[in-house]
Amino acid sequence: MVRVMLLGQGFAASVFAWGVMRLKKGLMEPYGIPLARVDFGVPLTSIDVVASVDVDAVKVGKSLYEVVRMYGLEPEPELREVTVMPGLKLESTPSFIKTRALDDNRSLADSLARLQEFIDEVKPHVIVDATTTARSSPLNVWEKVEDGVQKGTLPHPQVYAYAALERGDVAYVNLQPAHVACSPAYVERARTKRALVLGDDCATGATPLTVDILEHLAERGRRVLSVAQFNIGGNADFLSLTEPDRNVAKEETKSGSLRDILGYEPPHFIRPTGYLEPLGDKKFVAMHVQWISFGGFVDEMIVNMRINDSPALAGYMVDLVRLAYASLKAGVYGTVPEINLFYMKRPGPQGLKHKPKIIAYQDLLRYVRGIAAIDIVERVFEVSQIRVAG
Amino acid sequence: MVRVMLLGQGFAASVFAWGVMRLKKGLMEPYGIPLARVDFGVPLTSIDVVASVDVDAVKVGKSLYEVVRMYGLEPEPELREVTVMPGLKLESTPSFIKTRALDDNRSLADSLARLQEFIDEVKPHVIVDATTTARSSPLNVWEKVEDGVQKGTLPHPQVYAYAALERGDVAYVNLQPAHVACSPAYVERARTKRALVLGDDCATGATPLTVDILEHLAERGRRVLSVAQFNIGGNADFLSLTEPDRNVAKEETKSGSLRDILGYEPPHFIRPTGYLEPLGDKKFVAMHVQWISFGGFVDEMIVNMRINDSPALAGYMVDLVRLAYASLKAGVYGTVPEINLFYMKRPGPQGLKHKPKIIAYQDLLRYVRGIAAIDIVERVFEVSQIRVAG
Amino acid sequence: MVRVMLLGQGFAASVFAWGVMRLKKGLMEPYGIPLARVDFGVPLTSIDVVASVDVDAVKVGKSLYEVVRMYGLEPEPELREVTVMPGLKLESTPSFIKTRALDDNRSLADSLARLQEFIDEVKPHVIVDATTTARSSPLNVWEKVEDGVQKGTLPHPQVYAYAALERGDVAYVNLQPAHVACSPAYVERARTKRALVLGDDCATGATPLTVDILEHLAERGRRVLSVAQFNIGGNADFLSLTEPDRNVAKEETKSGSLRDILGYEPPHFIRPTGYLEPLGDKKFVAMHVQWISFGGFVDEMIVNMRINDSPALAGYMVDLVRLAYASLKAGVYGTVPEINLFYMKRPGPQGLKHKPKIIAYQDLLRYVRGIAAIDIVERVFEVSQIRVAG
Amino acid sequence: MVRVMLLGQGFAASVFAWGVMRLKKGLMEPYGIPLARVDFGVPLTSIDVVASVDVDAVKVGKSLYEVVRMYGLEPEPELREVTVMPGLKLESTPSFIKTRALDDNRSLADSLARLQEFIDEVKPHVIVDATTTARSSPLNVWEKVEDGVQKGTLPHPQVYAYAALERGDVAYVNLQPAHVACSPAYVERARTKRALVLGDDCATGATPLTVDILEHLAERGRRVLSVAQFNIGGNADFLSLTEPDRNVAKEETKSGSLRDILGYEPPHFIRPTGYLEPLGDKKFVAMHVQWISFGGFVDEMIVNMRINDSPALAGYMVDLVRLAYASLKAGVYGTVPEINLFYMKRPGPQGLKHKPKIIAYQDLLRYVRGIAAIDIVERVFEVSQIRVAG
Repeated sequence: MVRVMLLGQGFAASVFAWGVMRLKKGLMEPYGIPLARVDFGVPLTSIDVVASVDVDAVKVGKSLYEVVRMYGLEPEPELREVTVMPGLKLESTPSFIKTRALDDNRSLADSLARLQEFIDEVKPHVIVDATTTARSSPLNVWEKVEDGVQKGTLPHPQVYAYAALERGDVAYVNLQPAHVACSPAYVERARTKRALVLGDDCATGATPLTVDILEHLAERGRRVLSVAQFNIGGNADFLSLTEPDRNVAKEETKSGSLRDILGYEPPHFIRPTGYLEPLGDKKFVAMHVQWISFGGFVDEMIVNMRINDSPALAGYMVDLVRLAYASLKAGVYGTVPEINLFYMKRPGPQGLKHKPKIIAYQDLLRYVRGIAAIDIVERVFEVSQIRVAG
Repeated sequence: MVRVMLLGQGFAASVFAWGVMRLKKGLMEPYGIPLARVDFGVPLTSIDVVASVDVDAVKVGKSLYEVVRMYGLEPEPELREVTVMPGLKLESTPSFIKTRALDDNRSLADSLARLQEFIDEVKPHVIVDATTTARSSPLNVWEKVEDGVQKGTLPHPQVYAYAALERGDVAYVNLQPAHVACSPAYVERARTKRALVLGDDCATGATPLTVDILEHLAERGRRVLSVAQFNIGGNADFLSLTEPDRNVAKEETKSGSLRDILGYEPPHFIRPTGYLEPLGDKKFVAMHVQWISFGGFVDEMIVNMRINDSPALAGYMVDLVRLAYASLKAGVYGTVPEINLFYMKRPGPQGLKHKPKIIAYQDLLRYVRGIAAIDIVERVFEVSQIRVAG
Repeated sequence: MVRVMLLGQGFAASVFAWGVMRLKKGLMEPYGIPLARVDFGVPLTSIDVVASVDVDAVKVGKSLYEVVRMYGLEPEPELREVTVMPGLKLESTPSFIKTRALDDNRSLADSLARLQEFIDEVKPHVIVDATTTARSSPLNVWEKVEDGVQKGTLPHPQVYAYAALERGDVAYVNLQPAHVACSPAYVERARTKRALVLGDDCATGATPLTVDILEHLAERGRRVLSVAQFNIGGNADFLSLTEPDRNVAKEETKSGSLRDILGYEPPHFIRPTGYLEPLGDKKFVAMHVQWISFGGFVDEMIVNMRINDSPALAGYMVDLVRLAYASLKAGVYGTVPEINLFYMKRPGPQGLKHKPKIIAYQDLLRYVRGIAAIDIVERVFEVSQIRVAG
Repeated sequence: MVRVMLLGQGFAASVFAWGVMRLKKGLMEPYGIPLARVDFGVPLTSIDVVASVDVDAVKVGKSLYEVVRMYGLEPEPELREVTVMPGLKLESTPSFIKTRALDDNRSLADSLARLQEFIDEVKPHVIVDATTTARSSPLNVWEKVEDGVQKGTLPHPQVYAYAALERGDVAYVNLQPAHVACSPAYVERARTKRALVLGDDCATGATPLTVDILEHLAERGRRVLSVAQFNIGGNADFLSLTEPDRNVAKEETKSGSLRDILGYEPPHFIRPTGYLEPLGDKKFVAMHVQWISFGGFVDEMIVNMRINDSPALAGYMVDLVRLAYASLKAGVYGTVPEINLFYMKRPGPQGLKHKPKIIAYQDLLRYVRGIAAIDIVERVFEVSQIRVAG
């Protein structure tokens, strides 16, 4: 079984916990999971959510069963077994959240020590960061990380990732825009600690579709004149993006791929645009692209979407957890570009060029076949050893 | 130089003739040409339109210069050199066209003989069929083709392709939905006559984009519930599709890819929908797709486009003509799946499975590199022979 | 109480029966009812569904409770009291329906007699025709109606309306495109029989919105170049429209208003376009309009909608039933242009010019105030008589 | 002839000057002018642009002929006769404009005196403010206006309007969001100076359409859940809105009508969203509205538009100039709600409730008929006087 620890028990992590349990019981189809039908030795049913951490006073102390119900889903009773524990709020938790955090009344050092103890108890294979968007900078050397953690200047994802890597033998999956897999210091540290960091900023909605649409245009020699993309939603993530710093952080990861795909950077306006409560988790996306066709004629395309944000992310989480586990098992440390390029908006390591997602998917399949092969070889080897031993 | 003969001097063929001349003179950017920047030995400037055939009384006898002006474009004076010659109307020319055709007052046999004479005179390397959509059936053996040609039961594209293949040493590029590259008889005949047929039904607009969008969804495990796609335009092609038989022919090639891409065939309504004159050549496309995401949540996407139909096709023609020529030169006969899979809605040979266009593009690049390599090898060989001879 | 008899127990009539009962019990807000907050003496709670007629073998003999559940709604127990009775299938019932009709094994005369008996028993104030779209012609004299009824050449709505008017003292609300309120014969007959016909073809979705959008453009002097409108859905109504005759009937009522609103008829393509089962009752609408602005600049607008077809209709039915009842009570016979102009796609009587819906609404309010005033005057009169009598 | 002075010689004022001249010469159709076909005694051909003021160094000193050409239009030679004169930059001119203004090197008092001299020379009947969006507050008493003008704390539109009203016998048409017609002080002052102020913020694009669409929904009892509206464009107006203060000013006028139309204020996000240069003057609008229909079913609508911003405004200007002139002539002073309610986003006077635009249009027609009647009476009177005199 793959032991999973969740950071940030929001809607995405809750749909994930709810859905994984339903998958195990055969109560739902595995839709929305990219590799659902690809066998690489870690079946959908092997995921075990063993711990959950949050800083929202409404959630801390409740069981996953209770939290999942708060989101209007009908949970399986097994979710009663996991209780949401307090995490670190630091400076980067949105101001609209009433917190119950380890560092509410404790020193940062003390709070961090308690968090690390908790991780040691839980023994996760994979830690998934599904916390709120936080702005950050890439960090190049581990001393800077240590320094930032001590001084409390780093945002929560970088501190959580620090705690994970200090323990080692674990994978850290960063679903949000903070620089973890794109921080050389984290990737290098992971390498030396037999650990893995995957990230950054999971690409589930309009951004990866835009990448593939632009590739589609580029392959036809069409010259893109402009790209406008608006996103508006009513979940906590969009609410947090009304805080300007977070919005900028998100905007950066959203438009990073244009030059890599097209070979030039067309004028563009791509950002999360606003919060509108009645849209709920089903965000509204509007996109306008215009381009020059043969002979100078100008075409245009408008894409409108209603996308359930958190379920899309939860489906990816099912893969990321399994891929992280399988990679570690196959002896892959540091980070894995093949995974990041498909699942992430700003794929690590730092400086990695974007690829069309459809191409990245082919590369991902090749990578997966590779680690599956290692797995088979090892299983054969174990079997032969058993026989020898026998 | 690549000698090109155009069948059907409509807007697409006219934009092509106009644009190719402007490219040669460096008067426009090569936008909308997929392989504009890929060097495989046949530069953009090497295309020579040497003949044009049509059955529209308004066009036959006019120069390309005059026809291009009828479409509101400003042509280069060199286009005066080619005069539109009468072709075959047969039974498959739309009823709304007042014809001036070889078979207006002549027997079919006589008309065909004259067409063949004309081809012999012109000596084209590539014949491009940009005539109106015609309904057809695939033909399995050459005797059936000969029989149909004699009896006058075949639609014009299959008769034109017959004439081309009887001559041999030529490439026939079929841009419309009639079964040529998807008729085993034509492909086999091409093979034995050192000729090539490429087709069928060029995929420039909503259809290939739909393919890539569906692949995008499939790679994320999203279960497509339904696809609706409407197309409406005001050019002669849409007018011809108001004739039910043609509409059905088009509908078939438009929706053929669903099962190949998704692995199942979702309920769909994909068709050219109507004629609306003021839209002109810039068609309006509306598409609705809905799917199940993780946990059973339903997402939806709407795509609206305004696409200049004929320029998009003309841009492809620039590639197809060059690829056809380069393939023949490299000794490739019959048909070329790698070309058809990228450029066509129903790629030949018959039974070929669709691929995501983004993947097909990668395969196309590999194919192109292959024929370019042959070309280089041969050139080196020639050079060495010259030296030996010297 | 207003006694209502439903013809055609499809989704619309079922949402209506279900919703009316919930309104009476205060279980839902009166959204989607245009005059919900206008008091004209017939409260929302005064509607009583007393009878239902259908020809679908799956529904006939079942209670409304059972039929409503078939549509996935949770009905109030009172709906058990009404049983769906067999109606007339005639020639106009869609071929995909397995019927259980009065005229399955009976002569038309006998069937009609039984239907009339049933109406006499039920004593409805208002009969609502929510049956499937049928093609028809307007009928000018009552002899033609009688003749058509006898020979069985009229479609079912015109036969039902005949039966209603033969009885008299009743209102017939025609929600579908057959010519009833637009047949002079029916309107005249209603006048002489102290009866009312309202219709034809209820305007709930894209059509009335298009009217108001076009008026909006016309008031700004913008010259409309073209209008394209597609509708696709997965309910029985869309399925029936795959039969060409019905489609044409619908198309006619959809585009009738262009000239009346704009003063000219722009090129247009406005029609129900297709059937796509997974869309269910929530149809997808795509509309494209382009126009010339000041100085010759061309603007364009695209409207996409997902509309629950049957609930929209059911909300209108709540008004139409009340308005019909109040009008009869106020001594209004024949038909009522003020009602038809707001609620209908082809408002009767024949030849009536369309108005912008927003204007028609103001006229409707004035009309409603008028009949409410009559009602008040009569109530005052009654009270004074009572006093005199006392 | 109606003597018009333009403030802000941007694209809108340039299309206006260009188009008015073409209308006079019969070179174009009067599309995009709401009252083009309504005769109220001031024909389209009676407009004379006699002066133009700007602060952009690129425009000041050039003729209208030259400025119009800068915008890619082909002007009539008569436009050479008007030269753009320097205006007031104050604090409210966008920072990205290199100015050449009266107050570049002069005291404000001196600059203002020069402006007033210029107005005296020009003797305009109507002054049209088509300058850039500026933020402002409503002003209640004239002393505050005088005080703000002296201290230089008012934005340019309120200073220009001050200058106009000091002169009197003139109409001031305020096309932008500053509070002029919504400032009680200006309206009152206009009344006493036999002058008129019309405004504020001309409503040409998505905002008035939204008003009519919401009225359409409201009349059907549909409960609006949310409204999202994005606007993005590439003209100077959108560029200026990237300055946060201006954006807020615009946002306020855009969403002011919701409560007046619906009776409640649904959650909404309505604002000019961004600047994207390649869109040019043809802005892209995306709107999403969702509502509850009968029975609690949720419908949704998406509207996408490409609108030529400045031509739409120029078409309105043709009316506003004529209506202002005709109103003054009919002895109407202060402001005119009937005009403002149709043409403006925040119609003056302060506190005026919005109406559906389609209703406002009917009221406007009535108002226009009223002033036309006065005009006729006066003309008859004049004629009779002439006769008497004769």
